[in-house]
Amino acid sequence: MTKVKRVYTFGNKQAEGDTSMKNLLGGKGANLAEMNLIGVPVPPGFTITTDVCTEYNKLGREQVVELLNDEVKKAVLFLEETMNAKFGAKGDDFPLLLSVRSGARVSMPGMMDTVLNLGLNDETVKLIAQKSGNDKFAYDSYRRFIQMYGGVVMGVEAEENSHDPFELVLDEIKETKGYASDTELTVEELQEVVKKFKIVVREQTGQDFPTNPWDQLWGGICAVFDSWNTERAILYRRMEQIPGEWGTAVNVQAMVYGNMGDNSATGVAFTRDAATGENIFNGEYLINAQGEDVVSGVRTPQEITLEGSKLWAERAGVSENERAAKFPSLEETMPKAYKELFEVQKKLDTHYSDMQDLEFTIQDGKLWMLQTRNGKRTGAAMVRMAIEMLEDGTIDEKTALLRCDPNRLDELLHPVFSAEGIAAAKVLSKGLPASPGAATGKVVFSADKAAELVTKDPTERIILVRRETSPEDLKGMYVAQGILTERGGMTSHAAVVARGMGKCCVSSAAGIRVTHNALAIKDKKYVEGDWISLNGTTGEVYEGQVPTITPSLSGYFGKLMEIAEKHTRMNVRTNADTPHDAKTAYKFGATGIGLCRTEHMFFEGERILAVREMILAEDEEGRKTALNKLLPIQRDDFEGILEAMDGYGVTIRLLDPPLHEFTPNDEKSQIEMAKELNISLDEVKAKVDSLHEINPMLGHRGCRLGNTYPEITEMQTRGIIEAACKLKAKGLNPKPEIMIPLIGTVEEFVMQEGIIRNVAEQVFAEKGIRVDYLVGTMIEIPRATLIADQVAEHAEFFSFGTNDLTQMTFGYSRDDADKFLPIYLEKGILKNDPFQKIDQEGVGQLIRIGCERGRQTKKDLKIGICGEHGGEPTSVEFCNSVGMNYVSCSPFRVPIARLAAAQANIKQS
Amino acid sequence: MTKVKRVYTFGNKQAEGDTSMKNLLGGKGANLAEMNLIGVPVPPGFTITTDVCTEYNKLGREQVVELLNDEVKKAVLFLEETMNAKFGAKGDDFPLLLSVRSGARVSMPGMMDTVLNLGLNDETVKLIAQKSGNDKFAYDSYRRFIQMYGGVVMGVEAEENSHDPFELVLDEIKETKGYASDTELTVEELQEVVKKFKIVVREQTGQDFPTNPWDQLWGGICAVFDSWNTERAILYRRMEQIPGEWGTAVNVQAMVYGNMGDNSATGVAFTRDAATGENIFNGEYLINAQGEDVVSGVRTPQEITLEGSKLWAERAGVSENERAAKFPSLEETMPKAYKELFEVQKKLDTHYSDMQDLEFTIQDGKLWMLQTRNGKRTGAAMVRMAIEMLEDGTIDEKTALLRCDPNRLDELLHPVFSAEGIAAAKVLSKGLPASPGAATGKVVFSADKAAELVTKDPTERIILVRRETSPEDLKGMYVAQGILTERGGMTSHAAVVARGMGKCCVSSAAGIRVTHNALAIKDKKYVEGDWISLNGTTGEVYEGQVPTITPSLSGYFGKLMEIAEKHTRMNVRTNADTPHDAKTAYKFGATGIGLCRTEHMFFEGERILAVREMILAEDEEGRKTALNKLLPIQRDDFEGILEAMDGYGVTIRLLDPPLHEFTPNDEKSQIEMAKELNISLDEVKAKVDSLHEINPMLGHRGCRLGNTYPEITEMQTRGIIEAACKLKAKGLNPKPEIMIPLIGTVEEFVMQEGIIRNVAEQVFAEKGIRVDYLVGTMIEIPRATLIADQVAEHAEFFSFGTNDLTQMTFGYSRDDADKFLPIYLEKGILKNDPFQKIDQEGVGQLIRIGCERGRQTKKDLKIGICGEHGGEPTSVEFCNSVGMNYVSCSPFRVPIARLAAAQANIKQS
Repeated sequence: MTKVKRVYTFGNKQAEGDTSMKNLLGGKGANLAEMNLIGVPVPPGFTITTDVCTEYNKLGREQVVELLNDEVKKAVLFLEETMNAKFGAKGDDFPLLLSVRSGARVSMPGMMDTVLNLGLNDETVKLIAQKSGNDKFAYDSYRRFIQMYGGVVMGVEAEENSHDPFELVLDEIKETKGYASDTELTVEELQEVVKKFKIVVREQTGQDFPTNPWDQLWGGICAVFDSWNTERAILYRRMEQIPGEWGTAVNVQAMVYGNMGDNSATGVAFTRDAATGENIFNGEYLINAQGEDVVSGVRTPQEITLEGSKLWAERAGVSENERAAKFPSLEETMPKAYKELFEVQKKLDTHYSDMQDLEFTIQDGKLWMLQTRNGKRTGAAMVRMAIEMLEDGTIDEKTALLRCDPNRLDELLHPVFSAEGIAAAKVLSKGLPASPGAATGKVVFSADKAAELVTKDPTERIILVRRETSPEDLKGMYVAQGILTERGGMTSHAAVVARGMGKCCVSSAAGIRVTHNALAIKDKKYVEGDWISLNGTTGEVYEGQVPTITPSLSGYFGKLMEIAEKHTRMNVRTNADTPHDAKTAYKFGATGIGLCRTEHMFFEGERILAVREMILAEDEEGRKTALNKLLPIQRDDFEGILEAMDGYGVTIRLLDPPLHEFTPNDEKSQIEMAKELNISLDEVKAKVDSLHEINPMLGHRGCRLGNTYPEITEMQTRGIIEAACKLKAKGLNPKPEIMIPLIGTVEEFVMQEGIIRNVAEQVFAEKGIRVDYLVGTMIEIPRATLIADQVAEHAEFFSFGTNDLTQMTFGYSRDDADKFLPIYLEKGILKNDPFQKIDQEGVGQLIRIGCERGRQTKKDLKIGICGEHGGEPTSVEFCNSVGMNYVSCSPFRVPIARLAAAQANIKQS
Repeated sequence: MTKVKRVYTFGNKQAEGDTSMKNLLGGKGANLAEMNLIGVPVPPGFTITTDVCTEYNKLGREQVVELLNDEVKKAVLFLEETMNAKFGAKGDDFPLLLSVRSGARVSMPGMMDTVLNLGLNDETVKLIAQKSGNDKFAYDSYRRFIQMYGGVVMGVEAEENSHDPFELVLDEIKETKGYASDTELTVEELQEVVKKFKIVVREQTGQDFPTNPWDQLWGGICAVFDSWNTERAILYRRMEQIPGEWGTAVNVQAMVYGNMGDNSATGVAFTRDAATGENIFNGEYLINAQGEDVVSGVRTPQEITLEGSKLWAERAGVSENERAAKFPSLEETMPKAYKELFEVQKKLDTHYSDMQDLEFTIQDGKLWMLQTRNGKRTGAAMVRMAIEMLEDGTIDEKTALLRCDPNRLDELLHPVFSAEGIAAAKVLSKGLPASPGAATGKVVFSADKAAELVTKDPTERIILVRRETSPEDLKGMYVAQGILTERGGMTSHAAVVARGMGKCCVSSAAGIRVTHNALAIKDKKYVEGDWISLNGTTGEVYEGQVPTITPSLSGYFGKLMEIAEKHTRMNVRTNADTPHDAKTAYKFGATGIGLCRTEHMFFEGERILAVREMILAEDEEGRKTALNKLLPIQRDDFEGILEAMDGYGVTIRLLDPPLHEFTPNDEKSQIEMAKELNISLDEVKAKVDSLHEINPMLGHRGCRLGNTYPEITEMQTRGIIEAACKLKAKGLNPKPEIMIPLIGTVEEFVMQEGIIRNVAEQVFAEKGIRVDYLVGTMIEIPRATLIADQVAEHAEFFSFGTNDLTQMTFGYSRDDADKFLPIYLEKGILKNDPFQKIDQEGVGQLIRIGCERGRQTKKDLKIGICGEHGGEPTSVEFCNSVGMNYVSCSPFRVPIARLAAAQANIKQS
């Protein structure tokens, strides 16, 4: 039996681990080891593996300490030798203090516990004071240690409605002395604080603060393991989908000090600009400080580079003299350490071939690197760095593509609030980020009013505020800058339509109530004309006008898309109902339309009248008369869209929603409708009543309409084919694909197909011209996936409608799921919102069955997806894995889908 | 290559076919052949096979006539020899006339065409007259032939809004002469009619009536083939699910005549009593008549047996003298022919070992059998015959079981209208036969009023009339005789609940409108107190009181059930929410409860108040307070049900419907609720508003309630376990099975199971007693079937909820599907209503997947069904085929399910 190795040491440019061992050593531990191996100065230390965390959870503290004992002892000895210091020093020894930090495979910032300065007690503190010649540093470290260890390891915490008991001690002294900051405390006062802190520990825990450094060390190690299973850590993992089995490693390192005087410093740095991606070293530091001081904001940190420092001064309105005097750069204050740091960062950037986020400490002029990791970045920086590294040969095309998070591209496509604007703005509420972008405008509560205002003054900026939206609100949504709704999820009508329009939308905003003429947020009321601002990317709602900026699509973005194209198998189409949307998507690189909904066309202007006339008709004859009025309008719609996507397939879905969506529910509109159609209000009411459905999602819609009222299918087909003939006659190359929605039986398809082919032949004969067209179907009813082999005998393409398929496979109404879905996500009953990411375990099985059976019958069957998932990266990856030919998504998600499709192909091939 | 045989002859006690060849020769042809083989006198003839019908549809008339020519010629020669007569006779020949009849595999009464007396023309008619010595018979036959052939083969038909042109000719002559009936026409007048008929044919078709008998014959044969594809035949096949590929055979037979004088007769007979099943020969006949006269009602047919004749006279108030003189039996008038007929019927009854429906003709004293087939019978007769034949050793147990149609048992279980009552009643409307039985009562329009009236006078008979019902109507449904609704399908709330109660219900009645205080049917209004009657077995609505009778369950029924029990693998449980229902089902042989819905218990009396209090509670605390009030009530409910089914498993489903079902929608009730709960109307409205769902079917219900409000699950579990403990302490053997509804993810189950087990252990500890209980789940969400392997790791049983599974697999809301389902059935897009019969092609696949995966994990997993399909025979058969352990259905369908389960096991093993 091989002995299990539980502890990996590093230091002195040697290491037992390396960067490839992240699963075992955690991200931090693996990188600390790696830095040693490439000659970067790192305080020596050791990593206890993530496997031990799993053992700890199984076996408990006592057994694990026993298992670790020998290896940890040996490792500490190694640290003592390397640092020429002694853990639990006495007499002449230089005391070795330790830091104990967590480190999982992936970073979980702030989620787990850290203990610094471990090893201090009443004796070692004196030695530290003596050896460093800095009493204040020694006692300040001691009190920090007791505070940290007391809280993290021993569980001292604030009682309900009270402050942290350690802070109370500090506050009391500071108040007595009239100090503003902790740093003003004298050595004597710090010694007093230490005494009082120990009393707090005794009172709160019933135990003395441990004086034995080894007890301290085991306490610290076990506390890190314990912190893996705190409630907040579990919650965080659930949100980020980090498996609990992964566990955390524990990193124990020799302490180094940036606060040992004016020849010491500490700082953080980035190897490139995290905001823009520019290849320029940057960061901040503080002289005579510990790491937490840099981020705490007590002192203003200074720029590391001279260039950065000058830029900062310019922006902050600080004169060069004042800058050089008060805020000099590290390049100026410690040129030798700076030079070393600059070389280290260069080395790390090249070594990891990615932008690094660094932490360093300079102790008495000597540079120590404490951490390196891939730095967080903006979407724009992400793209620029990937392309620049590709261009200078650091990485290859596949790596460049895989390094970009498709979701982050969104930031490059929508207007955003300026940073200054956000900083100054007051957040009123937070809802779902239903459709990204930023918008500012005057609140308006009805679509009619919105349209009226914008017609009067086209520069008017409007935020349409509704309890929820319905197709009747479309005209208002068109003219609005953004939409705010009280209800509805990520796939509510408002969200779906807004994303389709590339318009900002926040839905289900917390604590707001919308009536017909007011928006109440908490106690405050906003009426028509009041300004608010929406951030559709974060879900935030702000008071007043927050300034926005429109990012331009840089050349880097274009290059990324070009490379994506080269590595992609699937096509990316768009969901577009208007020539405008089609053109937008075309600009973003869509090669075809995967879903053109025809119902939205039914609402605009006069046409709704004809639609209502059709609905009210008593018989087929009457319906045909009304449909004849719609025909020329539909034909024009189709002509515009086919022309905008000339040469590419345009999938047009026949009428899908239940007819009651076209009739008004409020009496006022009903009276209007009666007047317009010259019938009695009672007749209107009777019709509305008879159309009412208890579960409209599962009602009289989709091809059920076309099969009960074939004349609707006839009119729509005629519109499509006539438009295509007209374009072909003009020398264009229209490619209509007629899609039959909501098929559940093969007979439904066959009956509709018969009507379509029949009408098409009639039109061809009338016009003396033929165009190629396809007849296919949406697969969105669970049953359709099960009989896909039969359907494929007739259908020329499948398009998975994953919105409805998800609704029916789960039995979730997306209009109502906000009552339990958030709770399900919070409790972990669902790992993801299945309306955002395809549920591969359940819905995915049906999709797979549908694809396999379809292709069983027709080997080359064209298959795509046109649900909301078509623009979501994990879903796109799934679509690639089941062999789909294309995905289709809203115009603004086309770039995201293109990148995701390329990544999927790279990963899977 | 073997030559295909297309024509099969029979006659003279020989035949080329037999009864086993029904697929090829059709039912009629196969039985005609068989009768020859067993020595029964049958007019000789031949059968053209059903395969030729298929050829005919493919190749067309000309080719098929050529293919048939030789064989038909040869067959006609055989007839001529056998009958010693000549087809197209001249001079001294006795003319052979033919009948041409259709005959598919299964009987399609009245759907296809028949031609009699074929072969007559101006010459042969004279020969017939001469040979028979009966001019009137000859010319009457001739005019009948022209009329029949002209209509069926040559397509003479009435013009719109006019009468049949042949009938117009007859009417004219009869009017001129003052005749009441055709039989009064003289020979000369008949000759005149023949001439005029020929002119009608020429005028209507532009062709002369064919004089060549061979032309006539081919015309007749092809007309039968053509009639297979008439609209009405296609529609009939669709309804009866007869495949179009089956085709019809053509039977050509020598004509025999019951109208050749007083020594001739014709009649129909049954070998046993079709109404009661008694083993007694019976039937009717007429002297000197053709077959159609017996059924046309022009003359009163006479009883065949003396006993039957005497009984008839007694009932009709006819004296024995008058009877003997005017209406003698065949036994008296033609004793020799009667004796032969009696022996033939005995032989046929024994030979087919089933009750036969016979047609016969006596020509000049000689008996000819024209047809035998299994006779239609009432449900009661069906059971009695099967048991009697079993008891006398004619058939075995399996045959006896298979011979009974489970659906027909329904007739034996519900009250029915008396035949006289129905004859006298006026039909007002026809709706869906939503729940069988007959009911008569006063119309009442609200549940409250119904309850009030019956409380005042318990003998009051009420018909509850509602637009549609909701759980709030339950108390009214309980006290009503029957329920009539304007809306809703076979699985609407009204239908499901009514069937559960064994109460008559008609839903979606045509042309009725229900308001809060009136029922309008066409132009007439019915108000509270007016009497109507409902036939839930046919869907008919009658005016006034129609008398009902309650059939008693005869000993035959009990015996059938006993035999069924012996041959069954699956158990039959019942869906019952009350001790009363449980007892009813127990009487019908249910061995356990497959579905006890707990929500119905929430509506009665005071408890709805506590439910509403819970719904309105702001937090868990408030909900718990309200739930504590419900606990003792629920415990009593469960105690009653567990006691009624003591020793058998009782599956109790936790709360399933969305909470808004428990809050009132009309303002009046909301005001009441506000008063009762001592809160403002606005609060009530706000809550009702916040609970509103767009698609409640897919909303916040099922285990989604229990997982968001665990305290509901806790209360219900406590109620169940406490009740079980109490019964066990009393020495009973309660077997509760707790069922978690609407599982879609395994986590939902695990979370609910945790709560249940926890509470159960608490109760066991408190009571110091343990009971065995199971925790299982309903499989009704498509996704649940796909992850059944995971669910089975935790669940102890599965129960398929096929109502919801069908809704979601098809995407049909059963509350709304009446808008398109009837049209889909009519157009053949659906072969069956999937809410009545399990859709084996689609939903069945998911059930199969669910069963297989569940048993993959847990080999002995108990699996059942508790949807409405559990009592439908084809669905029961399917359940057996996928290996379910039990089916569960409403109490009154238990016997049906028991028989169906036995049949399934017999067929499948």
